[in-house]
Amino acid sequence: MEGRYDIAIIGTGPAGVSAAITATIRNKKILLLGQKDLSNKMVKAHEIQNYPGLPHIAGADLGKAMQVHLDSMGIRITEDRINAVYAMGDFFALQGAEQMYEATAVILASGVNTSRTLPGEEEYLGRGVSYCATCDAPLYRNKRAIVIGYSEKEEAEAAFLGEVCSEVLYFPTYMEAVREFESPVRVIREKVTGITSPADGMTKTVTTLEGGRYETDGVFILRDAVAPDKLIPGLEVKDSHVAVDRQMQTNLPGCFACGDVTGLPYQYIKSAGEGNVAALSAVAYIDRKRRGEKQG
Amino acid sequence: MEGRYDIAIIGTGPAGVSAAITATIRNKKILLLGQKDLSNKMVKAHEIQNYPGLPHIAGADLGKAMQVHLDSMGIRITEDRINAVYAMGDFFALQGAEQMYEATAVILASGVNTSRTLPGEEEYLGRGVSYCATCDAPLYRNKRAIVIGYSEKEEAEAAFLGEVCSEVLYFPTYMEAVREFESPVRVIREKVTGITSPADGMTKTVTTLEGGRYETDGVFILRDAVAPDKLIPGLEVKDSHVAVDRQMQTNLPGCFACGDVTGLPYQYIKSAGEGNVAALSAVAYIDRKRRGEKQG
Repeated sequence: MEGRYDIAIIGTGPAGVSAAITATIRNKKILLLGQKDLSNKMVKAHEIQNYPGLPHIAGADLGKAMQVHLDSMGIRITEDRINAVYAMGDFFALQGAEQMYEATAVILASGVNTSRTLPGEEEYLGRGVSYCATCDAPLYRNKRAIVIGYSEKEEAEAAFLGEVCSEVLYFPTYMEAVREFESPVRVIREKVTGITSPADGMTKTVTTLEGGRYETDGVFILRDAVAPDKLIPGLEVKDSHVAVDRQMQTNLPGCFACGDVTGLPYQYIKSAGEGNVAALSAVAYIDRKRRGEKQG
Repeated sequence: MEGRYDIAIIGTGPAGVSAAITATIRNKKILLLGQKDLSNKMVKAHEIQNYPGLPHIAGADLGKAMQVHLDSMGIRITEDRINAVYAMGDFFALQGAEQMYEATAVILASGVNTSRTLPGEEEYLGRGVSYCATCDAPLYRNKRAIVIGYSEKEEAEAAFLGEVCSEVLYFPTYMEAVREFESPVRVIREKVTGITSPADGMTKTVTTLEGGRYETDGVFILRDAVAPDKLIPGLEVKDSHVAVDRQMQTNLPGCFACGDVTGLPYQYIKSAGEGNVAALSAVAYIDRKRRGEKQG
């Protein structure tokens, strides 16, 4: 733990980057959490036509320009995956795969998850279903685990579980080639349709479109982004997006949201604009809080 | 009149420019109204630090970059001042100083007016107080007029009134030197404090901080932006900003707003983001309307 941050920003797309830049200008101590290569969606975009001032820019070039902007202000990205955020009253506790963090305010800029929740996923979350290999691997020592990986970077998580578990079945949901794994990790190219639990409740069954039925002790579902209300208990969600007002305030005091996670349209310039507003709202929240503490 | 536009955009700051770019990408026929040199405030900004992707850019350079962007898409600016917008049910009628325009949807991106309304201004608007020299000059032929000019470009309006009126007193509110005027225009360097009307109601008295009292037949108040609810009758304003929802929809169907006119924070990237959202909402409005007409 490196002391309490003023603002933790979850996500490194245009919304998170914009929030980080404006919060830094306002002299706040920030923690910017996400991928070092910024938004996957953005850097893969062929051409972005409507980011005013940067006409017809390739997504990769917009990503580079944003990286230059972050570097020019000394803003670093912490590449940890946040699995849960708890409102502790006076601050927020962020549970990362690597470590815990504390921040006075939180800005959620985690983008949208286009993949749907699997049948059984919510029902068994915390009871045989986990989103975090680093956190929960010890529970499955010498047991069987299934890993459903939504991107290539989850392969490292499967390999790590292979060092701990007696059997690991890796189900990639993507088309790209998968790396070579050592025993006991095996790759299974079938489309997962759901998770059920036999009567004894201790084991889980993963079913596939191809008719497969795989018994296991635990199921790890590893996506880039956890659904916002799963990530932050108590967060109000409307039509599967975080409900915010025009100041980007969520229903939880001190918790702000911006970018695709707050709803349509999914546009880079809209996200960047909202990141700015969320940062200034978080700054105002912190300042009000400090004044209140001085007076109280 | 050049036929009906799909979308009229009032204002050429970052909000209006962003709306114009996105509406053009969506194949809409747009009318972009405002100053050719874009936002005065922006181009005079020393350095803008938090427009993501363009680190530490001078306001003038951001202006140039936006101009290049507009040029690359063939978007032209129409330099006419809009004095009133009327919701006609099926479309909007825009009263410019030069001519009338029609548009199916309107996006108001006119920025904020930091100058306050003068005492008496609202009371006598349309009864001796006017915002438009071109429109109302004929009413003051061979009569006395006072012009309160908020920027140097209003000097041309005062000169024009000098060709029509028997006397023109020009009160600049700015510090810059004023051009040479020919008779009957005279420049008076006093700070206007209000407008009153003697008992007969036909003339007006302009009072100044220096104790001056100037009798006149008409008062022209010429600012860059007219207050939004004066510009568009019926528009809902809250805390002196246009009330919008997260889709940038105002209380008037088909009328959207974005940028500083919708409220704090006054930030370039926030304005650009909102312009994008307003454009997409206007596009959706037009498409819904056309589908309805086809079905009806």
